[in-house]
Amino acid sequence: MAKVILINSFEVPQAKEDECPAFWERAAEYMRRQPGFVSTKLHRAVISGAGFHFVNVAEWESPEHFQKAVEKEEFNDLVAPYMNVFPHYPGLYEVIRT
Amino acid sequence: MAKVILINSFEVPQAKEDECPAFWERAAEYMRRQPGFVSTKLHRAVISGAGFHFVNVAEWESPEHFQKAVEKEEFNDLVAPYMNVFPHYPGLYEVIRT
Repeated sequence: MAKVILINSFEVPQAKEDECPAFWERAAEYMRRQPGFVSTKLHRAVISGAGFHFVNVAEWESPEHFQKAVEKEEFNDLVAPYMNVFPHYPGLYEVIRT
Repeated sequence: MAKVILINSFEVPQAKEDECPAFWERAAEYMRRQPGFVSTKLHRAVISGAGFHFVNVAEWESPEHFQKAVEKEEFNDLVAPYMNVFPHYPGLYEVIRT
């Protein structure tokens, strides 16, 4: 299957905005070690108060590679403390128009 | 100011999924004619039923260029019929980590 784009939008309480990049760093360090990982970029809203203050956009070789990476216990242990602090809306996408 | 990334996530009812790319084409045609436009990509969810079935990711020379583009009457006339059909969550971002 073709490459896929993960787009994951985060709702981050203003008081926790400094914590999000640090959490992203730890998750990115894990992801870079996984088979099929291509790249990842953390986006921060230019204007404070946006619905989603942070958005992660990552590229993976296939949906299966991404799925395997997030199913591992190491990853679950890593993200568990943040699951409720940062409500997030991940999806896997393909580019259909440019 | 530096380049900015527009990330706009769309909630699209399943029955309207075919209409979204056609709407995007019309909006993209308008955007390409505006000063400061750099690029735009329409992403479609790989798996049906994702929270956001489509995500537009576009690059602009500055927030001011984007703001001017969406304030014009021509753009408002273009998108008005779709505002309630496709609830959407736009934000302007900068890349802070790669």
